[in-house]
Amino acid sequence: MLLDGHIFKYAYSIIVYMFPKDGRMTLTVDDIPKQWYNIAADIGSPDILNPGTMKPVTAADLSPVFCKTSVEQELDKTHRFIDIPDVVREAYAQFGRVTPLQRAYHLEQYLGTPAKIYFKREDVSPTGSHKLNSAIAQTYYNKRDGSEHLTTETGAGQWGSALSLACNYFGLDLTVFMVKVSFEQKPFRRSIMETYGGKVYPSPSPMTRYGKSVLAENPTYGGTLGTAITEAVEMAVSDTTGKTKYAIGSVANHVCMHQTIIGQELIAQLNELDIVPDHMVACVGGGSNFAGFAFPMIEKKLKGKADTEFLAVEPSEVPSLTKGELRYDFGDSGCITPMFKMYTLGHDFSPSAVHAGGLRYHGMNPIVSELYHNKIINAVAYPEEQIFEAAVTFARTEGIIPAPESSHAIKGVIDLALEAKKKNEEQVIVFNLSGHGLLDMVGYENYLRNRKNPAVQI
Amino acid sequence: MLLDGHIFKYAYSIIVYMFPKDGRMTLTVDDIPKQWYNIAADIGSPDILNPGTMKPVTAADLSPVFCKTSVEQELDKTHRFIDIPDVVREAYAQFGRVTPLQRAYHLEQYLGTPAKIYFKREDVSPTGSHKLNSAIAQTYYNKRDGSEHLTTETGAGQWGSALSLACNYFGLDLTVFMVKVSFEQKPFRRSIMETYGGKVYPSPSPMTRYGKSVLAENPTYGGTLGTAITEAVEMAVSDTTGKTKYAIGSVANHVCMHQTIIGQELIAQLNELDIVPDHMVACVGGGSNFAGFAFPMIEKKLKGKADTEFLAVEPSEVPSLTKGELRYDFGDSGCITPMFKMYTLGHDFSPSAVHAGGLRYHGMNPIVSELYHNKIINAVAYPEEQIFEAAVTFARTEGIIPAPESSHAIKGVIDLALEAKKKNEEQVIVFNLSGHGLLDMVGYENYLRNRKNPAVQI
Repeated sequence: MLLDGHIFKYAYSIIVYMFPKDGRMTLTVDDIPKQWYNIAADIGSPDILNPGTMKPVTAADLSPVFCKTSVEQELDKTHRFIDIPDVVREAYAQFGRVTPLQRAYHLEQYLGTPAKIYFKREDVSPTGSHKLNSAIAQTYYNKRDGSEHLTTETGAGQWGSALSLACNYFGLDLTVFMVKVSFEQKPFRRSIMETYGGKVYPSPSPMTRYGKSVLAENPTYGGTLGTAITEAVEMAVSDTTGKTKYAIGSVANHVCMHQTIIGQELIAQLNELDIVPDHMVACVGGGSNFAGFAFPMIEKKLKGKADTEFLAVEPSEVPSLTKGELRYDFGDSGCITPMFKMYTLGHDFSPSAVHAGGLRYHGMNPIVSELYHNKIINAVAYPEEQIFEAAVTFARTEGIIPAPESSHAIKGVIDLALEAKKKNEEQVIVFNLSGHGLLDMVGYENYLRNRKNPAVQI
Repeated sequence: MLLDGHIFKYAYSIIVYMFPKDGRMTLTVDDIPKQWYNIAADIGSPDILNPGTMKPVTAADLSPVFCKTSVEQELDKTHRFIDIPDVVREAYAQFGRVTPLQRAYHLEQYLGTPAKIYFKREDVSPTGSHKLNSAIAQTYYNKRDGSEHLTTETGAGQWGSALSLACNYFGLDLTVFMVKVSFEQKPFRRSIMETYGGKVYPSPSPMTRYGKSVLAENPTYGGTLGTAITEAVEMAVSDTTGKTKYAIGSVANHVCMHQTIIGQELIAQLNELDIVPDHMVACVGGGSNFAGFAFPMIEKKLKGKADTEFLAVEPSEVPSLTKGELRYDFGDSGCITPMFKMYTLGHDFSPSAVHAGGLRYHGMNPIVSELYHNKIINAVAYPEEQIFEAAVTFARTEGIIPAPESSHAIKGVIDLALEAKKKNEEQVIVFNLSGHGLLDMVGYENYLRNRKNPAVQI
């Protein structure tokens, strides 16, 4: 399946962008969608529980953790659309939105499929992934609501990079707890956060009570996202002035809502091309990139306006949807967060060191979980080796080196496209290229070495 | 001068792109300029000399090294415009051209300058720099002219990455000699080349006669671009079947001509905005990014249609224009290339290990050299620490982490913008962001550590 040889004769190629409609030659803030889509207002969302009382959390329960507006948005099940503040839209424009929609002609050609494959290019963000969409929003609201310092966790480093840039942009300090194995394996990610001005600590760290307790038990523990979340939340709630708040990179509903900027843009782009996708595909870790990409189209499907099928792709090594249980669980390892009804592998799940660090989370956004439970979306899991095979195939056909996370979506797309080939059906498949892999070359290198790829020799 | 704090309140921002003129929503191959500009037809170019005869080289002299079309283009002093083959234009479209022109509002705001700063985004190429513009052209011509295998050198790895992708695209094998210090310091760059299917050897290597001789003298020698060029050329000319040719990443006239796609697009974009720049700034190593960016506008200046000033920025550690001599010299360390009339530090120059590996070349494109000698362009050199200060300032204001090479241009721009501030002149400054720095984080890390930046703490 891997593209080893050289197959491209002089293929015809086109990049499909979205451009302003009125013949202007410049892309400005006016081209950025004006609202996020809040799917909870249409289909609801399971209550979040306070583990002390096992009753639904109140805004007061969440306010030591998140800023006021983030809390409101997390609990909002009534407003279908939320206005995006102008300064957030300006930051979106500054940092590369509207992102292009591109057709993968060469991948199609290589697969010999009649399917048409399109991908949304979240990789063009300056921090390399979709994460900036929520980082900008959360940081702006924190600034407006009086926060001076944010804390967060990061796995692969994409969320931490995005939040570092956003905090610098809006003038907040930032402390990042980076999963220790990533901290050690990805020094460049750390340097990027520091270049933007973020402070980065390996987690478990001696900076928090929970970190100290974990280190006391196992000084060489490599950490998980769950551990890093506990540390970041503990640091936020421990600041009695209320000026330190926690910002979260995925899983939460308000994060998924901020990410719907992707799907809103996408629908406008698809309308312009007069296309309704047969399949939409994205990878899932905590669920925010899948949600942001798919929720606006899922709304259309639920209203009978589209018959698109949705596919969430996860690692076999962290199979929360395909092998997890739907139940209430903590969002972190230290059990200091509220409880979410979600597909979970258990809050003490410690995944193997897969290279797609952004997908190493034990749980799944509650609404994505519900949609999967109700068979409105599908899910599939693939092992890491197949993911890198898909990644290298994409790099060699389309030229872009995809993030290991995004390569899960690519693997799902390749299998759908080959199925379309078998059936000789001209299906339209759209996927989210959630990020590039330029900071993940260790994973590529391991894969290429182990394959004993004849094209590679040193 | 470095931006440590947080200065952006909610600034207004716009991204300036070039869009199709007819209101279409898609960017296709039709939007790619149809011709390269060959400045040698307007202002001539010093003869290249055969070192054996000290007479001008003939096409026959060069044909063991380059494919037929590359030789013709290198020696062409008559055709002002050269048609870009459709398949090359298709590949340009496939890999992200037309590139955006973007305004650096936040950098302007941070500097408090009345100057307007624009930058051309060559960083959006999938291989991260402008290098793909010539890689695609050379690889296509080699394929058409019957080559089956290319050899080349790479310093920072940007040229090698671009040529690896281009060779995979057009179906040629590729051998890359990577300067050994870079090979060791930049394993990720090597993995990128291998992901695209290139074979990579550290230079000096035991693969060539010259490499063996250098290793025999000094087994731990870290190599230079000059050494790597000798190895790549030796491997090409040693293949008596004629199926192996050498491809060059900079310095040569045909490379500079291919890069004029940048300047041609730029002029269209500036026309659309109704702007004539007061200053155009680019970094210089071998000269190809400066040439491609500036030559089309230099033509206008020479014809009295613009009074733009041009600034080439180089490292103080490798000051070929500002401290070199204008004379005939070899293009490589092993003295197997022809001789070029150029500003040179001597073909045996061994630069210190600056992080801007793409600028560590002893010579300069002959036409760029002539333009500097005739005071049509200016040049300035800055030391590495000031370059990284400018780089971090740009990252913190515009969000994009620039390549160390491109950061030379940024430093030049900052100084011009501060001068405009002193004089209170609303000048327009345009620079070429020739690449991103995501694979150069070691340089950033060293800089941040040595600065003892209070915002950085681990």
